[in-house]
Amino acid sequence: MRAFLIIGNKAVTKPFNLNDLAGGAGRMDILCRFVAQALFVSHGIRKDVEVYLLLLGKPDPPKTIKIVGSEVKTMAPDERNIAGLIRRALKVKCDKDWKESTSGIYISKKGLKDLLDELSKRYKIVYLRENGNDIRSFVGKVDDCLFVLGDHLGLKREQEEVVLSFADGIVSVSPISLQADQCVVILHYELDRLTS
Amino acid sequence: MRAFLIIGNKAVTKPFNLNDLAGGAGRMDILCRFVAQALFVSHGIRKDVEVYLLLLGKPDPPKTIKIVGSEVKTMAPDERNIAGLIRRALKVKCDKDWKESTSGIYISKKGLKDLLDELSKRYKIVYLRENGNDIRSFVGKVDDCLFVLGDHLGLKREQEEVVLSFADGIVSVSPISLQADQCVVILHYELDRLTS
Repeated sequence: MRAFLIIGNKAVTKPFNLNDLAGGAGRMDILCRFVAQALFVSHGIRKDVEVYLLLLGKPDPPKTIKIVGSEVKTMAPDERNIAGLIRRALKVKCDKDWKESTSGIYISKKGLKDLLDELSKRYKIVYLRENGNDIRSFVGKVDDCLFVLGDHLGLKREQEEVVLSFADGIVSVSPISLQADQCVVILHYELDRLTS
Repeated sequence: MRAFLIIGNKAVTKPFNLNDLAGGAGRMDILCRFVAQALFVSHGIRKDVEVYLLLLGKPDPPKTIKIVGSEVKTMAPDERNIAGLIRRALKVKCDKDWKESTSGIYISKKGLKDLLDELSKRYKIVYLRENGNDIRSFVGKVDDCLFVLGDHLGLKREQEEVVLSFADGIVSVSPISLQADQCVVILHYELDRLTS
């Protein structure tokens, strides 16, 4: 299994306008592309992937969305389609337990620490940071990892401290600074070369 | 310089509804993601990149859009923003010469052969196909390449014949079948490792 978590510092926690993902929805476009690149291959969805979105924007943070590749039934890779499914999840009244909104998509009120508490029982936690260890020297050692990435703002100091308290490794994927969804493509690529 | 061309077999050749990129606009979402992944890094645009979109959908094919990274001024990486700029280009009455619609974005009535005739004077032409040579064995040899990719339908036989008549190489980027934008991320990644 492979899992990916993005921390959306501005991503809103209520239903939003699908025509304004990059503005009013708090850069929800970044999270949508992250989901697309984590889940989709040509003409299909990776069944061995889970995606986690931590939404920390107004008005009711934190909310966490979980998307399970093996359970998702109706998703297309375009931003608007994925945003529509996130929007439906945000209509669900939720608490600390996962509640399913549509097939394979769940929402809860978990924050970063609660989420990592849960996921560190199933995954090694790997933090993606620009000055981390080169993925090529690390990739042979990874199996059942949760990769943690920041959005366009990166991780705040207190978020980083939480992640580091769980982290089994700090990894970098490129000599230049990339967007979160691009990092996900590269992680998949390096792992696929090992396992395919 | 790096250049990327995608052949959009269904991408419409008239202004389209921004709320229906994946449907009525003929999978324009694929072309938008392609542009985003070719041009954007974290907090910026690659100045050494050109992107070409060959639109072959109704009602007035072919039309080709050229996007020059060093000249683009107002572009964000979300699909809707890029689609809006493509839509503006499609409002321009065009012929075989390039006409600028917004900063760094040009449109013409060039078809595949005309386009490759022009670009093969400046670039080596590299065709991306699943059974091509592994990018890792090829990447050290590439410089000033135009990478040619298909959309979700791939290249038709007659398109492939045209591309192969210009091609300096056939390359594959992954052991599994990926989307065009994901291939672009991987191409950049492998090239960045050589040059950064």
